[in-house]
Amino acid sequence: MATIGGQLISIEGIDGAGKTKQTELLAEKLRQDGAKVITTFEPGGGDDGVLLRQLLASNGAQKQRGDWGPETEALLFTAARRHHLDTCILPAMRQGKVVITDRFADSTRVYQGFGNPRLQLKINQLHELMIGIEPDWTFIIDIPAQLAVSRVTERSGGDARLEAFGEQLEELRQDFITLGRRHEERCRIVDGNRPVNVIANEIFEIVRG
Amino acid sequence: MATIGGQLISIEGIDGAGKTKQTELLAEKLRQDGAKVITTFEPGGGDDGVLLRQLLASNGAQKQRGDWGPETEALLFTAARRHHLDTCILPAMRQGKVVITDRFADSTRVYQGFGNPRLQLKINQLHELMIGIEPDWTFIIDIPAQLAVSRVTERSGGDARLEAFGEQLEELRQDFITLGRRHEERCRIVDGNRPVNVIANEIFEIVRG
Repeated sequence: MATIGGQLISIEGIDGAGKTKQTELLAEKLRQDGAKVITTFEPGGGDDGVLLRQLLASNGAQKQRGDWGPETEALLFTAARRHHLDTCILPAMRQGKVVITDRFADSTRVYQGFGNPRLQLKINQLHELMIGIEPDWTFIIDIPAQLAVSRVTERSGGDARLEAFGEQLEELRQDFITLGRRHEERCRIVDGNRPVNVIANEIFEIVRG
Repeated sequence: MATIGGQLISIEGIDGAGKTKQTELLAEKLRQDGAKVITTFEPGGGDDGVLLRQLLASNGAQKQRGDWGPETEALLFTAARRHHLDTCILPAMRQGKVVITDRFADSTRVYQGFGNPRLQLKINQLHELMIGIEPDWTFIIDIPAQLAVSRVTERSGGDARLEAFGEQLEELRQDFITLGRRHEERCRIVDGNRPVNVIANEIFEIVRG
């Protein structure tokens, strides 16, 4: 594959799954293969995206997170995504680049829709109305909740959001798996409890096709 | 009218129309008439609403406005509105109060939808999906664009947003009028080029019914 033109690839999964590392490794492999690649992330990718991220992230440097209700939070994540799309993802795709994003709409579906089927439906409608695109590929890096907890604890010395989700982490993991199976046309569930290079090779081979 | 229970009233119009003053005067008159009333505003009403306002207002104390595209801006205003609804408007209405808000959804329809019929449609769909309520009464305070400019210039020594709209102000005024005529079931267009007490009496008599 000498040229991948204008693709969007999202890397999803619970905290500690290894999304950031796999985003980097996939970019590296695709570049070696001749593709033009950018990596980005949500929430907060794109110009001035930090202003939106600080409203949403639980542990930003400049903590400005309000006590948003679930619908408000879904709207704010969608606003951040639309901005990310306009100022980063779409311009790069129009230049024929491969955009690899560490989280995209599936994170909103899983986290904001968690345990709330009525809101899940609204989140999907909101996505169709205001975002309107799905990734060409979505890789859901799957690891056991217990491994996620130990990795994140080691990494950060305790993470507010992870603690908040606590016991729900295994359910969030299952929600990602359910979503992945429901969207087999674009999603692949990848076993994240293996050496990073083994995982990276698997993802790269799928993208290369 | 001894008891008005759980009503939402919005005061709309271009900058300089006198919305804030009429919000205050209507509250005063309704209170004298025995109603429980709160006054509020958009964008940024409700707990922590300032965090959202500073993303949207052009001249906040803490200027954090990003260069948002029109869809992102519509989403952010809708997020701010949903938060306002959850933390201020609905709790007060459930207590049987009259809520008078200085701007509501019609401002987003007019300003963010300005000159963009496709986005106007999306803004309405977004409202139905994520907000879902309309005011019992909307008063559109109508003044000529030229009067608005002179009032705002006098008040603030120059307003960034007003300058940005500049020549479009008369068109924005007309858009408010068009919207008001299209929603006669709840909207009343009020001539704002009269003494404040004359205007206030007119609005009060309509609300009292």
